[in-house]
Amino acid sequence: MIEIEVKARAKADTEDRIRAIGATMLGTESHVDLYFNSSTRDFRKTDEALRIRIKGDGARLTYKGPKLDCDTKSRLERTVKIDNPSEMEKILVNLGFLPTVIVRKLRTKYSLGDVILALDDVEGLGLFLEVEAKSESDWLKQKEKVLSILSSLGLGESIRNSYLELLEREQRKNLDT
Amino acid sequence: MIEIEVKARAKADTEDRIRAIGATMLGTESHVDLYFNSSTRDFRKTDEALRIRIKGDGARLTYKGPKLDCDTKSRLERTVKIDNPSEMEKILVNLGFLPTVIVRKLRTKYSLGDVILALDDVEGLGLFLEVEAKSESDWLKQKEKVLSILSSLGLGESIRNSYLELLEREQRKNLDT
Repeated sequence: MIEIEVKARAKADTEDRIRAIGATMLGTESHVDLYFNSSTRDFRKTDEALRIRIKGDGARLTYKGPKLDCDTKSRLERTVKIDNPSEMEKILVNLGFLPTVIVRKLRTKYSLGDVILALDDVEGLGLFLEVEAKSESDWLKQKEKVLSILSSLGLGESIRNSYLELLEREQRKNLDT
Repeated sequence: MIEIEVKARAKADTEDRIRAIGATMLGTESHVDLYFNSSTRDFRKTDEALRIRIKGDGARLTYKGPKLDCDTKSRLERTVKIDNPSEMEKILVNLGFLPTVIVRKLRTKYSLGDVILALDDVEGLGLFLEVEAKSESDWLKQKEKVLSILSSLGLGESIRNSYLELLEREQRKNLDT
């Protein structure tokens, strides 16, 4: 499954504009995301991600492949639901993966057709909007759609960095000062 | 969790003797076990195992650490239930693990106190008995117990090889002839 995704810093009027374009609010989720790196290849260099997400309806293990283009965050994404995130973390450590950063956020989800809009309040980073579609094929068409939605919300500038990368950058900044 | 386990080739009278020592039959399960090796360290050398098991009540991912002694198969074992074994297999392949052998078996389970007796009819290998206990601590005491049960069934000779190793050995034999 290809996840087509764009992200931008949200503005004060973003929530109003999401409602104005006719998106339906789906609900709010609290996410705790534990990211891992590999001891044998640096995921920051290979542009991969391995994550355990804990949220209200259970936990999931997700692998994300390298990004597929230069202007969005579109990439291969594979997810399984797991019954025990703590045991999964221990298995990953036994297999040579290292926990790196925890990202905590409150996500408010909206749907607009087959597109999901996620307004994320990320601890330590602030408010962002992710616009996301999934595709088994023809992902370029879906890409046009998510870019157009982002633009119609007045959020032209797409950020390709993950919250993980943005948090790591913040941590480095704090270490330098 | 430490899994204390001994295994032996079953004999014609093993099932009768299991009942005779008062074990209770729990049921029969069909297992399809897909084993993986690592592309960066050979699990056959490090004595680790990584497995997706598919059985009637769902699928599980299991990691097993190196064996802890010289006379049983006792080892660290960690398991999580997963909702999608095929997606889990793809995640493992993306992370650099390689599917190696599929082990298919019919397991008939019995309980005797806190010990599980598993009579396994393994495709391509025949009939085996595994006697298994779990322990968070004091695993040596549990080890005495499982060895004593194996002996009381007239199955003195414990096999430390996994079905995976036994099947790989069979496959090599077939290649040599």
